[in-house]
Amino acid sequence: MHANGRFCLSYKGLPYEVAWVEFKDIPSAMKAIGASPTAGGRYTLPVINDPNTGAIVSDSLAIAEYLDSTYPDKPIIPRGANVLMTTFEPTYCDVAYGKAVLFIVARTLAIQNESSREYFINTRLEMLGESSWEVVEKNAEQKWEDLKNGLDEVDKWYQKSGGKWIMGDTFSFADMVVACRTMWWNTILDDEKREELHSLNGGRWAQVLAAVNAECGTDL
Amino acid sequence: MHANGRFCLSYKGLPYEVAWVEFKDIPSAMKAIGASPTAGGRYTLPVINDPNTGAIVSDSLAIAEYLDSTYPDKPIIPRGANVLMTTFEPTYCDVAYGKAVLFIVARTLAIQNESSREYFINTRLEMLGESSWEVVEKNAEQKWEDLKNGLDEVDKWYQKSGGKWIMGDTFSFADMVVACRTMWWNTILDDEKREELHSLNGGRWAQVLAAVNAECGTDL
Repeated sequence: MHANGRFCLSYKGLPYEVAWVEFKDIPSAMKAIGASPTAGGRYTLPVINDPNTGAIVSDSLAIAEYLDSTYPDKPIIPRGANVLMTTFEPTYCDVAYGKAVLFIVARTLAIQNESSREYFINTRLEMLGESSWEVVEKNAEQKWEDLKNGLDEVDKWYQKSGGKWIMGDTFSFADMVVACRTMWWNTILDDEKREELHSLNGGRWAQVLAAVNAECGTDL
Repeated sequence: MHANGRFCLSYKGLPYEVAWVEFKDIPSAMKAIGASPTAGGRYTLPVINDPNTGAIVSDSLAIAEYLDSTYPDKPIIPRGANVLMTTFEPTYCDVAYGKAVLFIVARTLAIQNESSREYFINTRLEMLGESSWEVVEKNAEQKWEDLKNGLDEVDKWYQKSGGKWIMGDTFSFADMVVACRTMWWNTILDDEKREELHSLNGGRWAQVLAAVNAECGTDL
């Protein structure tokens, strides 16, 4: 999910170093550099620390807005689309995987380092409003079908966009949002399901990730 | 809520007649002309019947898309923004009044004709997942504060849009969506709360409705 920060910086042609943070240490690491929490008061990545200005910016959309305002070449958010970028991500998340959150969360636990497992479980149970991890696990796998149904809906958006991007011929932050999720799912899925994901919707999701990587000069 | 159809037709300069339908008769009236249900399988207005082509189109965004495709002058949806228009309305509804639905539904019952009251109550209870109207009424009024808080969030969008419209200098379907809601609330609020609504956010909401009316040549 930190990928959006790298997409943004690379697209702008700005040099950067990535500081990896163990999952359970995200809040303390962010507090240590004076980073703000994001929506809902949680500490989330990505966050950038710009040595040119001293700015510390949390939340990928806020990072895109900051970079466009500070380094105006190659806008990440096309002119006139900044509100529509704000409203894109919540609807995308809800439509694409709102019904499959248990599946994604359960699979994401499986790739945590041992030191973060307990922290991950406790924070996700609170987010999900569930009382036990057994309930999450028990209901998770059957949600794979919901994820595929959700992606069918998003595929229809691309079909009517008028081009290969969400904004038709114009690359934007919205495509980074979609590519980030494919990258996340690539990381958490087993080989069989990853292949299935890449076969869905005419190969749409691997294509979007590849196209965003090509546009940004990244290899995520 | 039918207002979006009129905004769209008037903006395009297309002549039209409005057929008013009693609330409880919406499904049967729509079935009678062969109109499709909209999201969730419900029959909702607006629906248009275009005598030039024979097309019958339900759902305000689908109407906007149909009109842009059939009558391309003065696009309602700016080039490249059709997916972002699809994703705007759900986030707008959630942010603006997702927490205040009980308030709005309770107030909307109050303006129903006697013949539609029972139908309105039964269908809204099902939508809300509530078992009794007493529960809706009991919790409704306290949600007025939530509506005002939601509008504060939407006001921030306009502040950062770069112009008087959601897309900055470019008028679009998204502004019709916002104006429609102000019109709805104007209809259901008592004088005191209507005045309060119009005083919020520097008078933003009455201004948006007036600006959309001016742009469309309507008086809604």
